[in-house]
Amino acid sequence: MKPMGPIPADFRSKGGALLIGGRKASALVRRAGETPLFVYDFAMAERRIARFRAAFPSIDLHYALKANPFATLVHRIAPLVDGIDVASIGEARAAIDAGMAGFCVSFAGPGKRDAELEFAIHHGLTVNLESEGEAERALAIGARIGVRPRLAVRVNPDFELRGSGMRMGGGAKPFGVDADRVPALVRRIAAEGAEFRGFHIFAGSQSLDAEAIVEAQAATVTLASRLAEEAGVAPPRLNLGGGFGIPYFAGDASLDIERIGAALEAQYHERPAALADTRFNLELGRWLVGEAGVYLTRVVDRKESGGQVFLIVDGGLHHQLAASGNFGTVVRRNYPIAVADRFGAEPEEVVNVCGCLCTPLDRLGDQVSLPRTEVGDLIAIFLAGAYGASASPSAFLGHGPAMEMLV
Amino acid sequence: MKPMGPIPADFRSKGGALLIGGRKASALVRRAGETPLFVYDFAMAERRIARFRAAFPSIDLHYALKANPFATLVHRIAPLVDGIDVASIGEARAAIDAGMAGFCVSFAGPGKRDAELEFAIHHGLTVNLESEGEAERALAIGARIGVRPRLAVRVNPDFELRGSGMRMGGGAKPFGVDADRVPALVRRIAAEGAEFRGFHIFAGSQSLDAEAIVEAQAATVTLASRLAEEAGVAPPRLNLGGGFGIPYFAGDASLDIERIGAALEAQYHERPAALADTRFNLELGRWLVGEAGVYLTRVVDRKESGGQVFLIVDGGLHHQLAASGNFGTVVRRNYPIAVADRFGAEPEEVVNVCGCLCTPLDRLGDQVSLPRTEVGDLIAIFLAGAYGASASPSAFLGHGPAMEMLV
Repeated sequence: MKPMGPIPADFRSKGGALLIGGRKASALVRRAGETPLFVYDFAMAERRIARFRAAFPSIDLHYALKANPFATLVHRIAPLVDGIDVASIGEARAAIDAGMAGFCVSFAGPGKRDAELEFAIHHGLTVNLESEGEAERALAIGARIGVRPRLAVRVNPDFELRGSGMRMGGGAKPFGVDADRVPALVRRIAAEGAEFRGFHIFAGSQSLDAEAIVEAQAATVTLASRLAEEAGVAPPRLNLGGGFGIPYFAGDASLDIERIGAALEAQYHERPAALADTRFNLELGRWLVGEAGVYLTRVVDRKESGGQVFLIVDGGLHHQLAASGNFGTVVRRNYPIAVADRFGAEPEEVVNVCGCLCTPLDRLGDQVSLPRTEVGDLIAIFLAGAYGASASPSAFLGHGPAMEMLV
Repeated sequence: MKPMGPIPADFRSKGGALLIGGRKASALVRRAGETPLFVYDFAMAERRIARFRAAFPSIDLHYALKANPFATLVHRIAPLVDGIDVASIGEARAAIDAGMAGFCVSFAGPGKRDAELEFAIHHGLTVNLESEGEAERALAIGARIGVRPRLAVRVNPDFELRGSGMRMGGGAKPFGVDADRVPALVRRIAAEGAEFRGFHIFAGSQSLDAEAIVEAQAATVTLASRLAEEAGVAPPRLNLGGGFGIPYFAGDASLDIERIGAALEAQYHERPAALADTRFNLELGRWLVGEAGVYLTRVVDRKESGGQVFLIVDGGLHHQLAASGNFGTVVRRNYPIAVADRFGAEPEEVVNVCGCLCTPLDRLGDQVSLPRTEVGDLIAIFLAGAYGASASPSAFLGHGPAMEMLV
């Protein structure tokens, strides 16, 4: 038997049936008409937003759309946040379609094409510049189309977020401009008459270490202040990135965001003079929506091989690549899994939960303990709200994409 | 500097410009209208088929459609092979749309739904049964729709392909039926009046070790003979799977398929009496089309960070996940990469080639040696003909899918 990660504490059951948004999983599948199905519980995302607001009363909240671009979800989140951060023209359109004002959308990403820059400048988005070359292209496009571009500078900081799942800053990186070259770039932007919008400084993501985040945020504020002083231009906004992780695996514990909020609020209220007129924001994706999503898939076959039990489901890594351990993780570990109609029941056997793809990579649960499970039963795989449906190879092997539903 | 894999020897250049199918890469991009673009050189696939025919004159050739389901390619390959192997209802439709007779299509995959089985039986496909439970469902569906099902048994062999990139058999596996239970299943199929089509025995894939493949094929024939004897039913067909790898990384060498062909031909001609009326086939995907594909992507930015050069391209892991090292590989290594308009030129600098996605996972070339490269240049990433476009998360971050073209 191998351990699995923790099921988010928000999930309840009724008569042994898993509830999502107060409704039985099996009823949601009937409503959808088929499996596999992603269900997102919007109330869970709302509670996350409320918890953020309580912990960070002076800090703006942006939604990192890349975590989950499902249109229904984005439309519901947009009115509850102060901005949306996008990473492509496709995401920019999704943010605008959701009713977000262009002014509240910022666009980061290391490889923006000219067409993307033109779209962003035309719609008044803030472009987080990733290099001096991109700055020159953006200035030229603004001049050509007669729109004053809104430009922020993404800074590759000279530190990193300790213990983060993905390091976005520190050392040689494809993201942003090395800190020592930032003041000159800010002066250049201002001299060219563009609207300077501030700094984007993102040191890492998927951290569960509150102290490491506090430390990185403190270093971010210090760096932003130093850069603003050296540039001689006040930044209207400091985007401190995100980095808030969620527990995926056995032994992971939830992040103490109240501890982080207390520290960042104190920092904000005692910020250096160079940041006196600067709004701070965090951009969160995974932490807002990751735990709110459940991937529901039905058992198609139950078989034995070499003394082990295999449950073969109608979903797989083509919908939930990360749960198979094939995206951004070196060692495969089990996401939390449950039998939807025997939620909370005592485990009775050790099984492998395999997807329907004809590849040995397609394993969603490796030697996990579950109640007795038969063909036709629904399996729930948790932590499917972020980097799930949109971050998986849905065309692989021709089974097609999963359905998505917000409740 | 880190090494990269070998560029397939078939590629030529003219005046320093990479040719694909005799045409300049830059001209192909103009024809497509944009980058990123997958180009498949059909003549390379044809030469592979011819080479197979010469080396395996008595053995049938099936195309494993999962390797590359691009419709134009499948339409051109279908008349040149003896069958197509599919892994989903979507792939089954693609094979039939390409003009392949249902009788020449076989369907493997551990999680076939009832609707898939019904489609397969209705169209006369051979269903490679993955379990006793699936056999019962197939028999019931055949009876219900009044069609005699064509059923083969996928065998989980009691050996594995040494040194294969992915182990498909040996030990406890989600694929097929453990060998010791196969004879009873074959008798059950025959007793129920289904058309028994034979065995599918697939021990592993992506092997570059000819001796290991020869050994696995010999063991496969021995096993099939033993199973046929024990079942008392003659198998019309033995599908020996594939397993032929291609060189992706530095130090990899091409597979000696003539060595394998000589051994398998000898085995075929001296096959045991129980297989006297059995046709043998191999199912190949990666080896037929993998080297024929090139992913072309344009440099959007050239920047320096921490003393390193970064070329940011308009493609990325959303199109070519495997080249980023995030699909089925533990250690990230470099696929072969070239600057399309300076093909064969001396390397002048060490660079990182990064995709346009806002994630540190999106690195296509890590510390590779290239000629001097500027914004606007075309980068060619080789070995993109199999498990590329269809096996990548094309929706991730909203940039959209790549174009595909056959030349």
